Amino acid sequence: MAVYTDINEVELKDFLQAYDTGTLLSFKGIAEGVENSNFLLHTDRFPLILTLYERRVDENDLPFYLGLMQHLSERGISCPLPLPRTDGALYGRLCDRPAALISFLEGMWLRKPEARHCRELGAALARLHIAGQDFAIRRENALSLKGWVNLWDKSAFRADEVLPGLEGEITEELALLEDCWPVDLPEGVIHADLFPDNVFFIGDGLSGLIDFYFACNDFLAYDLAICLNAWCFEKDGAFNVTKARALIEGYQSVRRLSDAEIEALPLLARGSALRFFLTRLYDWLTTPEGALVVKKDPLEYLRYLRFHRSVKSAGEYGLS
Amino acid sequence: MAVYTDINEVELKDFLQAYDTGTLLSFKGIAEGVENSNFLLHTDRFPLILTLYERRVDENDLPFYLGLMQHLSERGISCPLPLPRTDGALYGRLCDRPAALISFLEGMWLRKPEARHCRELGAALARLHIAGQDFAIRRENALSLKGWVNLWDKSAFRADEVLPGLEGEITEELALLEDCWPVDLPEGVIHADLFPDNVFFIGDGLSGLIDFYFACNDFLAYDLAICLNAWCFEKDGAFNVTKARALIEGYQSVRRLSDAEIEALPLLARGSALRFFLTRLYDWLTTPEGALVVKKDPLEYLRYLRFHRSVKSAGEYGLS
Repeated sequence: MAVYTDINEVELKDFLQAYDTGTLLSFKGIAEGVENSNFLLHTDRFPLILTLYERRVDENDLPFYLGLMQHLSERGISCPLPLPRTDGALYGRLCDRPAALISFLEGMWLRKPEARHCRELGAALARLHIAGQDFAIRRENALSLKGWVNLWDKSAFRADEVLPGLEGEITEELALLEDCWPVDLPEGVIHADLFPDNVFFIGDGLSGLIDFYFACNDFLAYDLAICLNAWCFEKDGAFNVTKARALIEGYQSVRRLSDAEIEALPLLARGSALRFFLTRLYDWLTTPEGALVVKKDPLEYLRYLRFHRSVKSAGEYGLS
Repeated sequence: MAVYTDINEVELKDFLQAYDTGTLLSFKGIAEGVENSNFLLHTDRFPLILTLYERRVDENDLPFYLGLMQHLSERGISCPLPLPRTDGALYGRLCDRPAALISFLEGMWLRKPEARHCRELGAALARLHIAGQDFAIRRENALSLKGWVNLWDKSAFRADEVLPGLEGEITEELALLEDCWPVDLPEGVIHADLFPDNVFFIGDGLSGLIDFYFACNDFLAYDLAICLNAWCFEKDGAFNVTKARALIEGYQSVRRLSDAEIEALPLLARGSALRFFLTRLYDWLTTPEGALVVKKDPLEYLRYLRFHRSVKSAGEYGLS
C-alpha cells in the first residue's frame, strides 16, 4: 500500500486544466502500487487513475511505458490507456513529479487464482507479446544478467546474515547463469512483472493487465518463466504443475513456443527466480525497520530457484 | 492512510451475497480514515464504500452510527447512506470484523478551506443539529469531561517529557473546566469530529459530511466549538477571525444560538481544544515508533487552548 505524495485540490485542478476530463467530482488515494502514488478520480464523465511517479521511476522511461500502453490498447490489449493532454503530451507535472492520467480498468486481482485463471493469463501474455512486436521504442531490461550481478555485488557480503551458506550458493548460481544464459531466443516487449496483482478478472474472465513500469525488451519466453514463478507456486512452496500446464497451454493457444524456447524454460525460470530473489534480498537488507513498505521474504524465491534447479526438462512444467 | 485488513475476492463475493448490489466489477483499498479499513467498490450499478470496522470501533455503537446516517439522509442531510442487506440488517461480517456497505459520496475535502467554505460548513452543521433532534438512539460522549480526566490520568506523569511545565498547566485547566463546564445548554446529536477531511465540496458548494464514528449526544454549541478549532486556525497558529465569523454566521443563518450558548463559546472552545490535545498526547506517548499511523503533534492544540483562554467573550470570534 502506498500514497507517498498527498495532493491538494488546488494543485489538482490546476493540473487538470491541461486535460479535457469534465468536472472533477472526487479523488481518493488508493492503497495499491509500491513504486508510485495513485489516486482514483471521478469526473462527471468517467473514472480515472492519476499516477504520480516517485523517484524510483526514471522520467526518461515514461515515453516507453506510456507509449507502450497506448500502443497495446490500440491493438486490442485491455490495459490502462493514458489520456493525452490537450497539447498531446502523455504526462504533466504535479507536486514536482511527473504525473499521468490513465483510464480506470474495471476488474479485480485474484488473491487465490486457480488453473483456469492461469490459462487465461497465458493467452493474454501471448497476445501482449504479439501486439508489442511493432512497438518502436526500446528499453533494455535493467534487471537481467548485468543487473543481477550489480545487485549481488551490493548484497553478497551480507547474504549469510539471512541464511548461512547463501553467499556461496548464489555466487555459484549466478556464475552458471552467466555461462549458460541463452543468446538467440525470440525477443520483444515483455511485461516483466505480471504477478497476480497486475492481472484483473471479472468473474473468471481476464479483464486487463496493469502496471507496465517494469516492461522492457527481452526474451519473450522469459516473461512466461516469470509467470511460472509468480502464479504456479502454492503458499506452502509446492509447485502446482496443473497451473503451469494451464499457463503454458494458454500461451501456446495464441503463440507457439519454439523448441529452443521450450528447452530454455527451466533455465529462464531459474533466472527469473534469481531476479526476484535478488531485488527482495537487496530491499530486505537496506529497507529500514518501520518503513511503510512491507518487506517481502527473499527466501521464498530461493526455494523456487532450488526447485527449478532440480527440473530436468520443460516436461516437468506440464508440457506434453 | 490506512487499510488494516486486506480482503480477497472470494470472501468479498460471499459477503455481497447478502446484498442486492449488482455485479462486482472492482474493489480497491483507499488511503483514508485512521480507524477503519475502507474499500471503494464498483458494481455494474453504482460505486460503494465498504468499511471494515477495526477494533477501535465498538460494535455496540454501530446501530447508533449507521442508524444516524440513515436518519440524517432521510431528512435531506447529504451524508453516506448505509445500504441495508436483503434481510434489513445495516451491517454484516467480513474477515471476522463488522462490515458495512455505504453509498459513495462525490466531493473532495479541502486542504486549503477559505472563509466562504466555513460559512457553508456552519450552515450544514446547523442543519445536521436540527435533523438529529428526533433521532431515537442516544450515545454518550466518551470524550467529554469524564473521558478527559481518564486520558489525563494515563498521560499526566509523562506530559513534561513533551514540554516542561505541561503537567501543571493541563491539571489546572482541567480543574477549571470541571468547575465551570456548562450544564444546561441545548443538547442533541453532534458530529464531534467535523475536521476538513470529513467535509466534501464540489466547487465551492458543500456536497456532504462523512465519518460519523465519533457522533454522540452533547451540547450542540460544543460541535461549533470543535469546528472553530478544526477550521479557523492557520498553519502558522494564527486564529483567522474572518473564518470564525463566517462559520458562526453560517450556523446562525439556519439555527440561532441562544445567549447562553454564545456566552459559553470560549469555554466550549477551550474544552474542545483540550479534548484533541489529550487524545493526541495519549497517542503521542503510546504509539510505537515506526507505526503506520502518522502521529499528530499535541502541542498544536495546546496553542489553540492558550488562545481560547485569552478570549474574553465570543465577540472575539467575530460575533457581532
